[in-house]
Amino acid sequence: MAAQPVLIAGEWRPANEPTASFRAEDPATGNAIGAEFPVSGAADVEAAIAAAAAVADELARTPPEQIATFLDAYANGIERDAEALVALAHAETALPAETRLAKVELPRTSGQLRQAARAVRNFGWTQPVIDTAAGLRSHCAPLHKPVLVFGPNNFPFAFNAIAGSDFASAIAARNPVIAKAHPSHPATCERLAQLAHVALREAGLPAAAVQMLYRFDASLGLKLAGDPRLGAIGFTGGRPTGLALKAAADAAGVLAYLELSSINPVFLLPGALAERGTALAQEFFSSCTMGSGQFCTNPGVVVVPRGADGDAFVAAATAHFAAAAPGVLFSRGVLEHLQRGVDTLRKAGAATLAGGAAAGPGHRYQPTLLQVDAAQFLHAPQALQTEAFGPVSLLVRADDVAQMAALAAAFEGNLTGTIYSAAGDSDDHAWAQVAAALRPRVGRLIGNRMPTGVAVSPAMNHGGPYPSTGHPGFTAVGMPAAIQRFTALHCYDHVPDGQLPPELRDRNPGGVARQIDGHWCVDDVDAGAPAA
Amino acid sequence: MAAQPVLIAGEWRPANEPTASFRAEDPATGNAIGAEFPVSGAADVEAAIAAAAAVADELARTPPEQIATFLDAYANGIERDAEALVALAHAETALPAETRLAKVELPRTSGQLRQAARAVRNFGWTQPVIDTAAGLRSHCAPLHKPVLVFGPNNFPFAFNAIAGSDFASAIAARNPVIAKAHPSHPATCERLAQLAHVALREAGLPAAAVQMLYRFDASLGLKLAGDPRLGAIGFTGGRPTGLALKAAADAAGVLAYLELSSINPVFLLPGALAERGTALAQEFFSSCTMGSGQFCTNPGVVVVPRGADGDAFVAAATAHFAAAAPGVLFSRGVLEHLQRGVDTLRKAGAATLAGGAAAGPGHRYQPTLLQVDAAQFLHAPQALQTEAFGPVSLLVRADDVAQMAALAAAFEGNLTGTIYSAAGDSDDHAWAQVAAALRPRVGRLIGNRMPTGVAVSPAMNHGGPYPSTGHPGFTAVGMPAAIQRFTALHCYDHVPDGQLPPELRDRNPGGVARQIDGHWCVDDVDAGAPAA
Repeated sequence: MAAQPVLIAGEWRPANEPTASFRAEDPATGNAIGAEFPVSGAADVEAAIAAAAAVADELARTPPEQIATFLDAYANGIERDAEALVALAHAETALPAETRLAKVELPRTSGQLRQAARAVRNFGWTQPVIDTAAGLRSHCAPLHKPVLVFGPNNFPFAFNAIAGSDFASAIAARNPVIAKAHPSHPATCERLAQLAHVALREAGLPAAAVQMLYRFDASLGLKLAGDPRLGAIGFTGGRPTGLALKAAADAAGVLAYLELSSINPVFLLPGALAERGTALAQEFFSSCTMGSGQFCTNPGVVVVPRGADGDAFVAAATAHFAAAAPGVLFSRGVLEHLQRGVDTLRKAGAATLAGGAAAGPGHRYQPTLLQVDAAQFLHAPQALQTEAFGPVSLLVRADDVAQMAALAAAFEGNLTGTIYSAAGDSDDHAWAQVAAALRPRVGRLIGNRMPTGVAVSPAMNHGGPYPSTGHPGFTAVGMPAAIQRFTALHCYDHVPDGQLPPELRDRNPGGVARQIDGHWCVDDVDAGAPAA
Repeated sequence: MAAQPVLIAGEWRPANEPTASFRAEDPATGNAIGAEFPVSGAADVEAAIAAAAAVADELARTPPEQIATFLDAYANGIERDAEALVALAHAETALPAETRLAKVELPRTSGQLRQAARAVRNFGWTQPVIDTAAGLRSHCAPLHKPVLVFGPNNFPFAFNAIAGSDFASAIAARNPVIAKAHPSHPATCERLAQLAHVALREAGLPAAAVQMLYRFDASLGLKLAGDPRLGAIGFTGGRPTGLALKAAADAAGVLAYLELSSINPVFLLPGALAERGTALAQEFFSSCTMGSGQFCTNPGVVVVPRGADGDAFVAAATAHFAAAAPGVLFSRGVLEHLQRGVDTLRKAGAATLAGGAAAGPGHRYQPTLLQVDAAQFLHAPQALQTEAFGPVSLLVRADDVAQMAALAAAFEGNLTGTIYSAAGDSDDHAWAQVAAALRPRVGRLIGNRMPTGVAVSPAMNHGGPYPSTGHPGFTAVGMPAAIQRFTALHCYDHVPDGQLPPELRDRNPGGVARQIDGHWCVDDVDAGAPAA
């Protein structure tokens, strides 16, 4: 049986000298499902990068309205095709069809594409700065080079390499995208790529602006990530793979935007525990086991003070975890990785309160709660920060607020850090102590809610200090900020008005926020002058 | 004789187990001058990074006004000490005392520090974004880690590791700085460090917020750049050293902001040559030989169309170069590097029109003009883009505008690219052709002026695509943009108002431009509410 075609240079074509083929699995049974997909070889990879590089300048010159049209048309296409997409994604990931895929993730994905379209239309990502006295004008511009996006396993729509935030961001900045599917949900990726391809032709974008390969060997991936024709990579996934890709990209001057592992520490201050410990146990359990815990922002560590309120929280949480059915993981690989993580935590001194083992059929794992002393955590902080990607969390029992702050200072870079405090002001001092240590170590500091919600907002930061990402200055989610990852700063020094990009000309193209001589405004450069 | 002390942890102390000592040279004679300075060993380097890391959180918490006070006080100190500073820098660099150091570079340096102070006071670099509906607020925050700044040889004040743009930017973002002097002007660095130290104590900043080491072995430099306690490096200098430091930093998740070699291609369009070729020859000659050509933005390649106008330009430029006195270079190392560069260009096919050799006494080199055919350039683009740092430029003769555009497309990443066009519209089509190829390859596209002027402006980009820098999204010059290199994006998710940084609270601290729900304004979050 011939494997499915790949999308290269604007056409669906058979893989050229594939090295193998593969099929998806139903995670609930472990059985192979669906069509054969190709593992691309060097010829496909070279064809894709060559085709993308060849259209990069043309895409960079494409009028913004045309880009926005593509993004909107693609969003519409995804919504029209929702039923089929949800069925495919559910079959390949075992994520709940209605509550998660249809009602939450798919609308988030189309909404994100539309937010990108709005940012394209209002030039929000370009940040025009004009200095009239110095004759200088600058803005964020396309990289003029392709972006390689690696999609993760855990969001078949919202972080898909051909539909998610990295994709929308790179295209909004008018860079071609080479999408590398996640091999655990190839049919979902294929269907999205078909919709993207249709929208691309509708909008009249260059044919090679969006391409799709399903899989290639790690060595080819490293070669591609380090190809100087590439402008950037966007990667969401595990740390070892991400750091290997980063090293390859760094060596070639290719920008590497990574979203790597994160254990998202949560601190329960004494007042919060006293006030609503039982409710917090429920909230924590729900957040940790939702989607079988396969979130980058899963609460992987919870710091709980000693004492009766803390004990009650632990007892309630343990009961929730012990009573819950095993969760289905995306693949055998995820399950094995999770088991290794749990083993590492145990070996470093964590005791098992609930769960701790796989549970068939398919790739199921018991919701798992572990516990360790703060002193032990501080003794082996590296091992006890091992990510266990799945429905697993480690409780750390602290003597007092000072020790909670010491724990906070022991964490490496994370996407999020959370503090729960009392409704009144009784925890204010404790908050300040813990936050002082936690703030520099996380991208998003959260008050009184679990970290698993990541709003698509201009004020979001889905990023954080190394090693949770490769650069602490950028977010992977939220328009227009996420777009700015894939841009180059372009300055024009005494360039004639007619040769400037629209948003840097004297005449404001319409409602574009620009910083002119130090002030943000939507004016023309000389507001009093008659329109040209 | 004991070597001069180093500035570590707030005190001037003798170097601890230095590996050697060195003295500056008078470049005009080649004779050693001034005091002995230490080559620091591992003990000093460790002491500096430990002290800086220890105060990073405290500095990040320092009220902005205190940082601004330091920057202003330091600027005042530099201006009060101008006479002595200029005398030292002139002795160590041979740069013209009055026309360059006293009248241009020193005021630029103090002005830059004051611009940084203004950006601190108006929070311009923090870019607050508030989404009231989502409960999210984000801004650019300190890295909470030290920044290691390597100063270059060619700007003893304006890019000095302890006074220049990288320094001002890192401190404005409230990060400690470890300054690594350039060993060709240690006494200038020492005097600046003394002034910085005085201002630091006046402003009450943490003692280890600013430290100074003069020199250490390359292997120690690589170890320090790759130390995970470090937040970022700022480097201005040669490509091999810069890329080695980048590799070390990248591997440890340390941000690497580099400003590396650049040859700054200049394109003379036919109309401009016909209109004012002789004047352009004078302008080019002045720009190329100013400061003995030791600028990152020196016009190292000029593309000249064939024909009578081009020939006249070449003849006039050749006459200027041939008649000019040799320029004094900063050091024997610079001279030897320049000679190697010229030899490489010649070996790749460039003919010598003027100069081409060293000329004593001291480290002098003849102003040098080379020429090559466009076809030959396109045949050996790598070798013919070799940087010759000094008063040297390569003319490339092109058959027509199409070939000029082909040349533009052959350049690797540069800081600047320049196009000269006729006053009327006769060159408009040619401009568009050349600019289309040049724009993506340069950080700053310049119209009708030489690249050597780099204004300290919010709209400046002193940066560019790899390999001219390590990240095309950031500028090394211009406030507040240069500050943003040394920041982390911090998001607050439902954090109580009282626990937020001042510029993210409901109440605007006063005139701070913030993006609230998509609009830039200086309002309170709820402008109608009574002041708290």
